[in-house]
Amino acid sequence: MSINRMGKSARMSQAVVHGGVVYLAGQVGKGDSVTAQTREVLANVDKWLAEVGTSKSNILSATVWITDMADFAEMNAVWDAWVDPANPPARACTEAALATPEYKVEVMVTAAI
Amino acid sequence: MSINRMGKSARMSQAVVHGGVVYLAGQVGKGDSVTAQTREVLANVDKWLAEVGTSKSNILSATVWITDMADFAEMNAVWDAWVDPANPPARACTEAALATPEYKVEVMVTAAI
Amino acid sequence: MSINRMGKSARMSQAVVHGGVVYLAGQVGKGDSVTAQTREVLANVDKWLAEVGTSKSNILSATVWITDMADFAEMNAVWDAWVDPANPPARACTEAALATPEYKVEVMVTAAI
Repeated sequence: MSINRMGKSARMSQAVVHGGVVYLAGQVGKGDSVTAQTREVLANVDKWLAEVGTSKSNILSATVWITDMADFAEMNAVWDAWVDPANPPARACTEAALATPEYKVEVMVTAAI
Repeated sequence: MSINRMGKSARMSQAVVHGGVVYLAGQVGKGDSVTAQTREVLANVDKWLAEVGTSKSNILSATVWITDMADFAEMNAVWDAWVDPANPPARACTEAALATPEYKVEVMVTAAI
Repeated sequence: MSINRMGKSARMSQAVVHGGVVYLAGQVGKGDSVTAQTREVLANVDKWLAEVGTSKSNILSATVWITDMADFAEMNAVWDAWVDPANPPARACTEAALATPEYKVEVMVTAAI
């Protein structure tokens, strides 16, 4: 089966398609608040899913990292308003420091196409 | 290919089936000790795998998070007694704070059906 | 579909093959520096991918953990020299304590075969 890669840099791809599944890179976003960042993170997820011809309704699995578990409710408020409630993915959320101190939220998803 | 979701809330599904593979949500468990929690976590994994017609012998990959790496041996003692030694999954285990302070162990798996 | 497992211990497999995809265990490496460890980690990834008949050019997704985000640039220098720049995977990198204090870097990948 072929592999198609989009949003390539020399380090990583933003989306890799193989066997009817797309694997996205961890998405981050700018913004001063967890709310603002989560919105941009999820907009980035939407953008890459659209680029490969799918949508959030087809997400299979999501890994969420937040830098401070005290932000769990704030992140979830944005997540809950965004996710397709008829078709939510499997998900895990853990606390972790991210690539730069500005980032408060990162989301990595696998979706069907 | 169709997507089947089980254990749906408005936030996530506990099991998502696509293309002969099931993606489980991160499973947690109650209990005062790492031993008790790990047993419940793995019983939850078993339960969701059974719901979709598979078992621990078909787990492809597992991600384990524990809140304190000092608990690594205690978690592993329960894991080692549970895993099918003829058919163990690929696995990674890292330390991370989890959704609530009570949780000491979380496990997320992908399995063949 | 059959499942083939390689590098089996009673706890985990180093590589699990199913449906044209291989799931590797989290790979670690020895060495006093992040550079030395990252080289060994990625050599281990190469070794297991070769064992199942594939290569780094077919990696779909990679999760990288480092114990101190201050090592991000040092890890990336080794990663960037190693990755196939025409075929980079989707990737996420977060900070986490690993199984033993000696380990500074761990990488888990999923690849097409």
